[in-house]
Amino acid sequence: MSKLTDVPKRILIGRALRSDKLGETLLPKRIALPVFASDPLSSVAYAPGEVLLVLSIAGVSAYHFSPWIALAVVVLMFTVVASYRQNVHAYPSGGGDYEVANTNLGPKAGLTVASALLVDYVLTVAVSISSGIENLGSAVPFVVEHKVLCAVAVIVLLTVLNLRGMKESGKLFAIPTYVFVVGVFIMLAWGAYRAVTGDDLNAPTADLQIKPEHPGLAGFALVFLLLRAFSSGCAALTGVEAISNGVPAFRKPKSKNAATTLALMGGLAVVMFCGIIALAMESGVRMAENPAVDLVRDGVPVGDSYVQNPVISQVAAAVFGQGTFFFVLLAAATALVLFLAANTAYNGFPLLGSILAQDRWLPRQLHTRGDRLAFSNGIVLLAGAAILLVVIYGADSTKLIQLYIVGVFVSFTLSQIGMVRHWNRHLKTERKPAERRRMIRSRAINAFGASFTGLVLVVVLATKFTHGAWVALLGMVIFYGTMTAIRKHYDRVAEEIAAADGPSDDSLRPSRVHSIVLVSKVHKPTLRALAYAKLMRSDRLEALSISVDPAETKALREEWERRNINVPLKILDSPYREITRPIIEYVKGLRRESPRDVVSVYIPEYVVGHWYEHLLHNQSALRLKGRLLFTPGVMVTSVPYQLESSEAAKRRAKKRANWNAPGAVRRGPVDRRPRESSKS
Amino acid sequence: MSKLTDVPKRILIGRALRSDKLGETLLPKRIALPVFASDPLSSVAYAPGEVLLVLSIAGVSAYHFSPWIALAVVVLMFTVVASYRQNVHAYPSGGGDYEVANTNLGPKAGLTVASALLVDYVLTVAVSISSGIENLGSAVPFVVEHKVLCAVAVIVLLTVLNLRGMKESGKLFAIPTYVFVVGVFIMLAWGAYRAVTGDDLNAPTADLQIKPEHPGLAGFALVFLLLRAFSSGCAALTGVEAISNGVPAFRKPKSKNAATTLALMGGLAVVMFCGIIALAMESGVRMAENPAVDLVRDGVPVGDSYVQNPVISQVAAAVFGQGTFFFVLLAAATALVLFLAANTAYNGFPLLGSILAQDRWLPRQLHTRGDRLAFSNGIVLLAGAAILLVVIYGADSTKLIQLYIVGVFVSFTLSQIGMVRHWNRHLKTERKPAERRRMIRSRAINAFGASFTGLVLVVVLATKFTHGAWVALLGMVIFYGTMTAIRKHYDRVAEEIAAADGPSDDSLRPSRVHSIVLVSKVHKPTLRALAYAKLMRSDRLEALSISVDPAETKALREEWERRNINVPLKILDSPYREITRPIIEYVKGLRRESPRDVVSVYIPEYVVGHWYEHLLHNQSALRLKGRLLFTPGVMVTSVPYQLESSEAAKRRAKKRANWNAPGAVRRGPVDRRPRESSKS
Repeated sequence: MSKLTDVPKRILIGRALRSDKLGETLLPKRIALPVFASDPLSSVAYAPGEVLLVLSIAGVSAYHFSPWIALAVVVLMFTVVASYRQNVHAYPSGGGDYEVANTNLGPKAGLTVASALLVDYVLTVAVSISSGIENLGSAVPFVVEHKVLCAVAVIVLLTVLNLRGMKESGKLFAIPTYVFVVGVFIMLAWGAYRAVTGDDLNAPTADLQIKPEHPGLAGFALVFLLLRAFSSGCAALTGVEAISNGVPAFRKPKSKNAATTLALMGGLAVVMFCGIIALAMESGVRMAENPAVDLVRDGVPVGDSYVQNPVISQVAAAVFGQGTFFFVLLAAATALVLFLAANTAYNGFPLLGSILAQDRWLPRQLHTRGDRLAFSNGIVLLAGAAILLVVIYGADSTKLIQLYIVGVFVSFTLSQIGMVRHWNRHLKTERKPAERRRMIRSRAINAFGASFTGLVLVVVLATKFTHGAWVALLGMVIFYGTMTAIRKHYDRVAEEIAAADGPSDDSLRPSRVHSIVLVSKVHKPTLRALAYAKLMRSDRLEALSISVDPAETKALREEWERRNINVPLKILDSPYREITRPIIEYVKGLRRESPRDVVSVYIPEYVVGHWYEHLLHNQSALRLKGRLLFTPGVMVTSVPYQLESSEAAKRRAKKRANWNAPGAVRRGPVDRRPRESSKS
Repeated sequence: MSKLTDVPKRILIGRALRSDKLGETLLPKRIALPVFASDPLSSVAYAPGEVLLVLSIAGVSAYHFSPWIALAVVVLMFTVVASYRQNVHAYPSGGGDYEVANTNLGPKAGLTVASALLVDYVLTVAVSISSGIENLGSAVPFVVEHKVLCAVAVIVLLTVLNLRGMKESGKLFAIPTYVFVVGVFIMLAWGAYRAVTGDDLNAPTADLQIKPEHPGLAGFALVFLLLRAFSSGCAALTGVEAISNGVPAFRKPKSKNAATTLALMGGLAVVMFCGIIALAMESGVRMAENPAVDLVRDGVPVGDSYVQNPVISQVAAAVFGQGTFFFVLLAAATALVLFLAANTAYNGFPLLGSILAQDRWLPRQLHTRGDRLAFSNGIVLLAGAAILLVVIYGADSTKLIQLYIVGVFVSFTLSQIGMVRHWNRHLKTERKPAERRRMIRSRAINAFGASFTGLVLVVVLATKFTHGAWVALLGMVIFYGTMTAIRKHYDRVAEEIAAADGPSDDSLRPSRVHSIVLVSKVHKPTLRALAYAKLMRSDRLEALSISVDPAETKALREEWERRNINVPLKILDSPYREITRPIIEYVKGLRRESPRDVVSVYIPEYVVGHWYEHLLHNQSALRLKGRLLFTPGVMVTSVPYQLESSEAAKRRAKKRANWNAPGAVRRGPVDRRPRESSKS
């Protein structure tokens, strides 16, 4: 008896061990920063270039607007960081934008945010990998020459690593991120020192001229162009919201540490962004939207063979010199951080999926934490969509960024509006003046954040719609529609299967059981099935065999008699050598005869160890089972017989149990509340 | 009671009706000829050209050997037809080459023949389709310009038709085959008339010169070339063995009718083959192995853009004129007959598969006649292999034919050797002088056939090995190896599961049953599963739920009490939101506690109507079941709950039941012997 009561305890201990194995330890700030900030910090590798690129449309003279645009981006960054610091304090459970919008604005807003985030994850992979390849390519030309191929290869590699359950380790993130950040800061400092001491900084493109597509732009057209440049610069803000999902992963005091990390990240991003733009201006970087025709060397366009390197690498070339150790190190670190940023999407996508599944917007099995198959499906879907985009857009980060920003600002805006509602609700009941003051201040920050990000969203939509934002919107609509349809299906089924109140439901009350054991030969699996079926003491028990070969049938009948098996053996003929049809007809016949009886069919099943063995066994049984389930009043029992080879599968299953669900580190440890309710 | 005993009768009547529906009526000779002869007769569309092609290597002067080669092919054709007439008489059950070799020479010879036939079926598709495209292309140039694409498209079309269960109808075969045969005879007659009356027949290539690759070939080299040309001409013999598989489909007297049809087919083939070669010589057809460089017009090679049309179309152009009605009609009929020839492989491949499955060389489920899924797998495998070959060899029938002939002659030779053994065995017991004389004569024919085809096999291997025959041999080795491995696996499993003699086998004798009903919510499927489980009267019954969400668990517990369900409810906590692991651990715990008990797990299952609904339901249940089966002493019962949408699937299943297995016509009606043994 003690053994049985031990079971739950053993399970708990087993779990406790697993909990360690999963590496679900809390993150100190110095590790949390790289884990959560690789995505937003890596944006500075492409955002500054996008600003210059758009400005170049009005000619190189428009470059002097870039400090103002940088300033606008900085203000926006501070606003967003300040807003999300409120989120972090209000939702220490790690409710991301989806939860905030869902709770405060209702399920439609929540679903909109979720759709935007799902599209964003796909684009995070596509943009980060493409930009990573471009940065790597500034040091290794081969990579840019085979851009699409290399980008797809990196996506496939990340996918395989994540499918195999690569453990997301804090250290793995820390080293490249810090190398990147420190490298950029050394570059900025050294570049500033050289500039101040009168050294001439010369970017590789400093001797090029820009042929403006629209020279002498003025008035509304110029304002529109500046807004477009600003929208492009907003790419620097992608990924800022990640920390708000990860509060539980922080050490205590969780909210405070998360808020501090958020501020730190914002500060670093702003300095890097502005510094790179400043050095780019100083060193005379020239970028154009269509470099082949718009960049001119000595009066001749540079042509299709020209590769436009990212701003960060051009600045590094100006400061350190092309091909020097520091130049190559920075290019490698930049690429690596961008790949890590892409990897965060691999963790975030299935995680968001599991939260959506909990609310029945996605298939229910995605909800199960650590379910390998569900995660795999999510990962493969993400990778497939990202590869599609990379191939369609030729791994061109500039083109992909047009799609990227709209989703980010949809979730920013809705999340901030939700926060305003959150404070309104709390202010209704809160009476303590100090608390009220704090809430009113938070509400003001969130309200400002909502208006500002909302404004940016409008700007982004207006300036980017035809450039590709419509694709992102279409993606959102598809996700939204699919999830709505899934939820509707679940709701309809839930209604259909809801149990009527009161204890009596006649159609569910069968009277007797007629058991049938399917037999092909007398061997161990059959004997086991017979033994089990006998144990169940049904009202009637018979063995059933389908005769497809008269010789085999005769042998079966003789063996049956020889062994004196005290179960009647019924044989159905099947001249067409069919198995399924005669059995189904027979069962239907039994049901017609006594509709209140239940027919219980026992199928001996071979349990094998390799996938190819499945092709050799149980195929008829599986198909039969599939058909029997459609017949009302039937239950189907599989009596397994473990072949020796099944040991191999058991070992595999054990190995699989050690699999790490992606995103474990950033999600923090398991919520242990449910365990307290444990009483059986 | 009468209702129950009616069931078998109703099944029989149902079957009788189906039998009609399958169209399994016996074939008169005039329909049997096209059904079985589309493959061998269509060979005359490519075989004559192959002879000329090889001869051209020694220059146009070597063309004068072609009548001798044609003669050798004719002698071989008569030999093979005479030999197979003996097979048809000796094996009226329709035992093909596989059965003959298997019975008389043992399983290894049988398996060798089977491997050769499987490879042959793949090549029948590849060669016939490629040649069909080339013939069609002589009238519609677009088709040759996109040769591979068109060939793949036709293969895909045939595959889809066969997967959908296209009924093989005698008439479908009859019309194009007779149009083709009559067309060729009109061409031969009209051509002969024009030649005799002194009209000049001019093939489109008559004005070309051939630049011989090896001019002035003599001695052994010339003999080798002639042997190679003869080997190529042997392509005319492919498909001759088909009738020997189809004897049961003939009207009575089956063997006699089949033998007559065989002779008729041989006669037609020989006349067409020789006639086409004769007219080709008369009209000055020029063909070369590498037409681009070896065919010369006014001293200049014709170049890569030159399309070498098949001999039959060149002769038609000479006789009727290029582009005339008769020319186009014949080209279309030729292409159609070739496509029909390819289709015979779609019928033969799964049929042979089912015979091999009966002997456990292939997965057992292939054995079930009319099993749609098994047929589908075979058809897809066949089509995939054929497409692969067509793509690799650029849909070039000349290259593919190099692979084709070796398999044909492997089965010819082994089958004829088997027949010699067959007669030897029968002669040992036969005492009647008349019978003995007949047998001795048959043996002589088969012995001659065996030596001749064996000789040809050696010639084919010697002359074609490096030209592609090695690929066919490799394919045969792969099939042979795979089938041997499958058989070994089945034998090993059979040994493992063989029941020990005597009635006692302790490990199979459990003592009590502990039943567990898995519960997530209280709804109709759960209530039904509980009701069914209660009916089974196990020794212990409890409901088991996994708590992944404390709120839901609380609601479940309250509902359970409110409804007064008299089954104890056990709740296991799962802080990681896992489903499978806690249940497996719990079941294992029960088993450890009382190892002689059996645990019976009831899983409520939703039965849905669309594949995408499967993604939304039962996923956890399926995975759980997969894992439970590995735990010894467990049986798993699915209690289905049919959702309304499952009606759609039911309708689909009914539609599918009307599906016609390919090959029904040529296989003849079902063997009704088993039905007579019907007693239950």
